[in-house]
Amino acid sequence: MSAADPSRGMPDRTDAVLRATLELAREVGYARLSIEGIAARAGVGKHTVYRRWPSKGAVFLDALLSTLKADLSYPDTGDIVADLRTQMNAARTLLGSDSYGPLYAALVGEAQHDPAITQAVYERWIKPLSDGTRERLRKAREQGQLSAEHDLDTIVALLYGPLYYRFLLIPGDYDAAFVDAILHAAFTGLSPKPE
Amino acid sequence: MSAADPSRGMPDRTDAVLRATLELAREVGYARLSIEGIAARAGVGKHTVYRRWPSKGAVFLDALLSTLKADLSYPDTGDIVADLRTQMNAARTLLGSDSYGPLYAALVGEAQHDPAITQAVYERWIKPLSDGTRERLRKAREQGQLSAEHDLDTIVALLYGPLYYRFLLIPGDYDAAFVDAILHAAFTGLSPKPE
Repeated sequence: MSAADPSRGMPDRTDAVLRATLELAREVGYARLSIEGIAARAGVGKHTVYRRWPSKGAVFLDALLSTLKADLSYPDTGDIVADLRTQMNAARTLLGSDSYGPLYAALVGEAQHDPAITQAVYERWIKPLSDGTRERLRKAREQGQLSAEHDLDTIVALLYGPLYYRFLLIPGDYDAAFVDAILHAAFTGLSPKPE
Repeated sequence: MSAADPSRGMPDRTDAVLRATLELAREVGYARLSIEGIAARAGVGKHTVYRRWPSKGAVFLDALLSTLKADLSYPDTGDIVADLRTQMNAARTLLGSDSYGPLYAALVGEAQHDPAITQAVYERWIKPLSDGTRERLRKAREQGQLSAEHDLDTIVALLYGPLYYRFLLIPGDYDAAFVDAILHAAFTGLSPKPE
């Protein structure tokens, strides 16, 4: 899959196609989404869609990831635990929302069958977010708020792994108390504390 | 989906169907698996399959989970970190194997589109394994090897979330060093250590 850069050329049609894709995916679900349906909803010919995106997976990926950018950046209040809590709850709220959660789950589902989508999900969703996390963690480490023992990739997996585990593998929503419990356990550690 | 109990009745045909399902899923992939193909491979009529399993998702779930039982139980050497390391590496090896990894990934993929499969994956895969983890953790806590501050569900998510995160969302294999790094970070904690 060569995921196109949605900012290049044909801006109006691109936006219309991406909007139509999200609308339609919400209405009929990913499984029943089709290039034909997207084209009809966007008011363009289906060849216009195919010229830019080779498959429904590709256009769905662009449509969904175009919504990801603004909401998940890190604050920097100088308190790493508070800032992680803010960002992790923003991620939890996005993934738990009725309007986006099922679409992100569908995208992860597709990634399990299609290595091109696995790669695109990693490069355009997981990696940009974890780059942001590492940057915030690096600063915290410089300020002495984080043990220097652990590498930053390990910390990202330790904090965000539990969120995706709940999102993808355990039915039902989870709340801010789960994020608090993960942060508390990750920062204080599982080893028994000396009296 | 009413996932049938494979141990009840028709043992020979059931075994043949489950074996045929795994073989065929490995050969053609989950997307191209069909009840017709399974029935032909197992040497039974397709109505024999449909009588027991309502969908290819249901028979695939039974087939795959019938392989899960033996390999992932916990040792108890009296050392919680060593025993977690043994079991987490067994899980890592199973999920990373060419013969099982893509099938488990396909099942998680299906679960993202179908709430009945989400529920079945939870009840028959995630919950039995995490029950086993909680049991081993409870014993460790009684023996003073684990802080009493954190609830056991939090600990399970903190340890296994990172494994599923790597398995489902990041391309490429991961090795025993990743398991070691997660265990070390989880047990010692991310907070800076007093000098």
